[in-house]
This record gives sequence, C-alpha cells and structure tokens, in this order.
Amino acid sequence: MAETFVIAQGGGPTAVINQTVVGAVLEARKLYPNARVLGALHGIRGVRDGHLIPLSELTEEELRAIAATPSASLGSTRDKPDEAYCAAVLKSLQNIGADAFIYVGGNDTAGTQGILSAASGGRIACIHAPKTIDNDLVENDHTPGFISAAEFVAGAFLSVDLDFHALPGIYVGIVMGRHAGFLTASSVAWRMDPESAPHLFYVPERAFSRARFIDDVKACLARHGRCVIAMSEGVSGEDGRSLVETIVPPDRLERDQHGNVKLSGTDLGRAIEQMLAEDLPGKRARVDTFGYLPRGSIMTVNPVDAREAFDAGAFAVRVAEQGSASVALQWDGEKTVFRAVPLEAVAGKTRHMPESFLEPDQNRISAEGIRYFERLVPRRFTVAKPFV
Amino acid sequence: MAETFVIAQGGGPTAVINQTVVGAVLEARKLYPNARVLGALHGIRGVRDGHLIPLSELTEEELRAIAATPSASLGSTRDKPDEAYCAAVLKSLQNIGADAFIYVGGNDTAGTQGILSAASGGRIACIHAPKTIDNDLVENDHTPGFISAAEFVAGAFLSVDLDFHALPGIYVGIVMGRHAGFLTASSVAWRMDPESAPHLFYVPERAFSRARFIDDVKACLARHGRCVIAMSEGVSGEDGRSLVETIVPPDRLERDQHGNVKLSGTDLGRAIEQMLAEDLPGKRARVDTFGYLPRGSIMTVNPVDAREAFDAGAFAVRVAEQGSASVALQWDGEKTVFRAVPLEAVAGKTRHMPESFLEPDQNRISAEGIRYFERLVPRRFTVAKPFV
Repeated sequence: MAETFVIAQGGGPTAVINQTVVGAVLEARKLYPNARVLGALHGIRGVRDGHLIPLSELTEEELRAIAATPSASLGSTRDKPDEAYCAAVLKSLQNIGADAFIYVGGNDTAGTQGILSAASGGRIACIHAPKTIDNDLVENDHTPGFISAAEFVAGAFLSVDLDFHALPGIYVGIVMGRHAGFLTASSVAWRMDPESAPHLFYVPERAFSRARFIDDVKACLARHGRCVIAMSEGVSGEDGRSLVETIVPPDRLERDQHGNVKLSGTDLGRAIEQMLAEDLPGKRARVDTFGYLPRGSIMTVNPVDAREAFDAGAFAVRVAEQGSASVALQWDGEKTVFRAVPLEAVAGKTRHMPESFLEPDQNRISAEGIRYFERLVPRRFTVAKPFV
Repeated sequence: MAETFVIAQGGGPTAVINQTVVGAVLEARKLYPNARVLGALHGIRGVRDGHLIPLSELTEEELRAIAATPSASLGSTRDKPDEAYCAAVLKSLQNIGADAFIYVGGNDTAGTQGILSAASGGRIACIHAPKTIDNDLVENDHTPGFISAAEFVAGAFLSVDLDFHALPGIYVGIVMGRHAGFLTASSVAWRMDPESAPHLFYVPERAFSRARFIDDVKACLARHGRCVIAMSEGVSGEDGRSLVETIVPPDRLERDQHGNVKLSGTDLGRAIEQMLAEDLPGKRARVDTFGYLPRGSIMTVNPVDAREAFDAGAFAVRVAEQGSASVALQWDGEKTVFRAVPLEAVAGKTRHMPESFLEPDQNRISAEGIRYFERLVPRRFTVAKPFV
C-alpha cells in the first residue's frame, strides 16, 4: 500500500495544473491516513536536488487556495533528463522512500516517467497526470488546462469580432500551438453565428501558403466587409518548416533542450503584418500575439476544467497501487471518464487535430470540429448582434 | 423640451460603450414619454448619410441585451469631419428635427461636438458623453471603458506573474496607449505584493532609453529571478518621437485622419525582443502584444464601469435641456459624481498620467498611483503565493 507520494509539475503552466496537485494530496490523505505527499520544486529538478515541500502538512483550506490559483505553484521545468539525470532522480526518490511519483505534464513528461519506471524495476509507481493547453495527448479526448485556455481564446475572438463590426478591417490573432491547432480552432466555439469571426483558421495541420492566405482574406473582405483570423504560432509552409523558422535569421533562432525552435509570435506577427501591407495596401490590418495570455489566465478558469484537473490528480493516486500508468481523459459519448493507459502509449506522441475537423481544401472548421469545441467550451455569455 | 435625440458612437470601442447608448434611450423614454431616439450607424457618418436606427422602438429587454454587449453596436468611425462634413451633419440633424445630439467618444468627439454646437447657433444641444480606455480626458477622474480594460490588464499581469514564478525569465506585455500610460500602469492594481509583477513600467509620460531599460531589467533579474514588464505602445525616445516611429521604415508608417501614426504593437514588440536578445543574450524572453484584447473584452466587463457608462448616457439626456456640454465623471473623495462641463474644456486636450503617479527617476508606480488604480480596479480574485 503506497504511503509516500512525490508530486511534481512539468512543462508550460495551465490555469488548473495546481488542481491536479491538490486533488492528489487530498485523495492520498483520504485513502491513507498517514500518507506523506511531497511536492518537488521546479519539476524533476526539485526531486533530483531534494527541494521538496511537505504538502500533506498543509490544511485543506491552504490546499484549496493553491488549487484555485493558476499556474504551477511548485514551479515547473523544461529540463529534458538524460540517463545520468534520471539515475539521480531515481536515487532521490529511493532515499525519500517514495512509493509513487506523480508527474503532471505533457507527452515529454510521460516519456520521463517511462524511463524512471523502467529504471526502478517497477518498484516505484510512476504516474503521468495529463496537462496541456495544446490538447495534443493521444489517448485523451481532451486534456486538463485546455478548456480554460480555449475559453480565453473563444472569448477573445468573440470580443474582437464585435470590435471589427464597429470598425471594420483585418485582424489576425496569433495563438500558441506548435504542432496541434486545437487551441487556435477553439476560437470557433463562441461565434454568434456561422458568418461571425473567426472567418479563417490557419493551423499547423495545414500547410500555409502566402498566395492562398491573401486570396482567402480578399474573399472574406468581399463577403463580410471585415476579416478576423485565428492563426497558430506553429503554422508551417509547404516544406514542413514552421513559418517562424523561415522568417527568423538563423543566428537568432533559439532552441530548447527538446530541440524545439522557440516560436516567437512577435516574429510571425510582424511577418504577417508585412504580407498584408504589401499585398493588400491601404487595408486596415492589425495583428496581436496572444502568447502567454490564454494559458494561465485567472479570468477564464473554467469550472469543468478545474474539476477534471482535480479528479485527474485524485485518480493518479488511486491507480498508483496498480503500478505505473498515464491518466487519460476519455469521452464515453455522454461524459468524461478517467482511464489508466500505458505510459508508452502517450510518451513522445503528438495528437494532431483530426483532418475531419477542417473543411476539405478550406481554412475553416468543419461541422464535426465545431461540435467538438462547442461541447468542450460552452458559451458563457449572451450578446446582441450588432446593427452593423 | 427636447424630444428627438440622435445618438452616435465614435472612436475605439470599449466593453461598456453600449451601456451609454442604452442609458440615454431609457432615460429619454422616462423623461419624455413620446421621445424619439435615433441611433446613427458608424458615428457622425451615419448622421450625415441618414443611416439611423429607431432605438426608442426597441423593448427594454432588447435594449438591456445591447447594453450588456461589448463594443459599439451602432458601429463607430475614425472620420475627422472638416467644415463641409460638419455642415452636412448639421443639415441632417435639422432635417430629422433633432433637439439634441449625443456623441459618445473621446476628446476628438468633444471637439466635433464643439464645432456642431457653434454651427447650430445653440439650437441643437450637442452633448459629449465620455468614453475611452485610455482614460485621457481632462476634467474626468476616470472615463467609462477604462475600468473594464484595466481589469483585463491587471488580471493578465497577475496571471503572467504566476507563470513566470513557475518558469522564470523576462516578459514584456505591450499595452495600448498613445499618449497616456494609465492603462499600462493599471497592471499594478492586482499585484500580490510589492515584489510581484509588473516589476517595471514604461509609459509615454517618461522618455524611453535602451541603456536604461537594459540596466533596469538586469537589476530586476538579480533581485527577483524574473522580470515582468508593462509597456505602452506609445513609449517615446528622448527626442519625443514614438519608438514605433523610429523603428518602422518611413514608407511603411501609416497615419490616420487625425495625423496619428499607426502604432503597431507588433513592430514595437519585435524591436524590444531584438534589444533583449542582443543585450541580454541567452536570457529567456517573451514579448506579447495585448493590442485589442483589453478594450472590449467580454471576460472583463466590470459592473461598476457598466453602471457608470449607463449613468453617463442617462445624465447626457438630462443635461441636454441646458444646452451643449461634455459629461464628466469626477471623484468627490468618496464616490463618482457626474458634472456637465463646457465642451471646450475637454476638446482636443489629453490628460496624461500625473508625474506623481510614478516614482521619481524610476520606472515604477508610486504609492499615490497605486492608491488610484487599486481604488478603480479592486482585485476580484484571491490567489495563493507560489512556493517558488
């Protein structure tokens, strides 16, 4: 029976990642009256270095306050551990006497857990609890953190659409998303009607062509008098390289430890602004980069997302008795259900937006895509259609 | 006794500008049972061209739905009317039999009302109802639309600060504001404590120097391990020219009808990102451009702002009997009070952030400034201080 848990948070924060930590602590306390739950600071780095907080000594009130706070209160990390790093982490977990290590993160995190689980010979349950605003984990219908971020994006595009009714022009909102367009596409969720914004969607799943983009914008302006566009930071050209990579001079391109190019929304935004100025001169155009704003916004902590994130942490504690696993949120046709799936089913894999979420040969979301986003991100506000 | 009102919306939309229109309609209906209230589409252009909506024929339910909707439902305009334009507008108002024309907007709008009032020989009451997220109208303690936009900015910086606790680095959020730094400075309102973000503020009221900026960031990183910065689009160098103007090639510089250079947050953002990459190489840095997101956000419609905007419209109708005026929101030490002030007191003037709102020789908000923003934008959320 597991009684010492270590928990850590990895990768980009979300609005509800603390819920998962607190869900785990409260569940451990419920199941094992003498359970110790230690929170590691800055992900596995904190495990390796022994920077640990005794979360199980906090009161429920203190824990609930942490749960309601966006971003990772324990700190996070982008470290990609090599063999020696993993060995040091494992040694530290053994010294602590950990029965289970719960790591909240994305597919890189699941990969780390797979390595640790194998290295421990199965003696420490290594549980991956899902978290990502990118919504790009396989085996999952959606991931904790996504709905809150999507609500920010949906609300922003509804608001901008109202703005561009009043003062028409071209608007491009650039949204995080390296390989998966879910967050960008979620902007469809709060449209007033099918004629409302965003009118066009550019996601990593579809090759970007400048000529096609300009034609799309022209047609949109002709039809609606305005054109509001949702674009992912990770949009890529026909050659598969991200636009940012083709725009930024090689000496300024930064890469993280995972080898990913740093996607600068600002570089992309400026390039798009320049394309519009050159190819559609005289048209009022504005590009904004949402960047970090959606991912941990205190203004859009969605209650369903918060509850699911909490439940994912609690579920992680319950499945730890059966050994290592990844927690997955699946959809049974009526509700979200939690399942334990093998770590290797999730590790290192990216779930892209299904082809069927996009209209064939068009930069628009299909009826199937709209149903998905409207289910996950129900509209929270009623608005009156403008007179103009 | 005035019985025919024309109302229009000018300049950039806000989250609550429709409240002012609906406040005027409902007050007119209350005071004058047979009042006609006509809404002009796209500001005075709609008056000139006779594009008018009979708002007084709508039900209270329909009007309340419009009031709750951000942005200008009647449409707005950036037109700067010349003499002939004003004459055409006046003729149209006379043809309609207008007793009063209420124009909701900023200081340019007050200027237009001054011209129309003089041209009509005082026979049509020309009322300016205030609206601007820039908060830059003289005679006003604050302006309708500002509080909601400020709440977006305050919430965004609180959220980003939590994010940068988890994954430290440098963050710059670029916020609208051409001549006045109020909106940028409002990011101070929801700080967790004096050590929290934003750590540095760059506003149009203080000359920007690259060397000083880099020194500030270095000192901030040394002290806090992270550096979160709020910067106005309108920051200007020692020579008084906006940074955007010095960055963008002259052939790409766009100007509006008021002669203002189009401030591209994206151009500024990229320049700042480049400065940081050059002068602080290897430091994780990210720049986001908030752009249009704060100004009409459906996520941060502040109830006090909404009520004051509504009351400003109602007040405009009441003062119309006494002739032309600008409606001003003043602070009596305990509450906001409405006053009618002469149009020429407001027209064409810009209220800057008082020098006393900034610390002498520092890019920080003073205690007096903090008191002002905390009064206007009370914190709506409680958060737990991160462990890191």
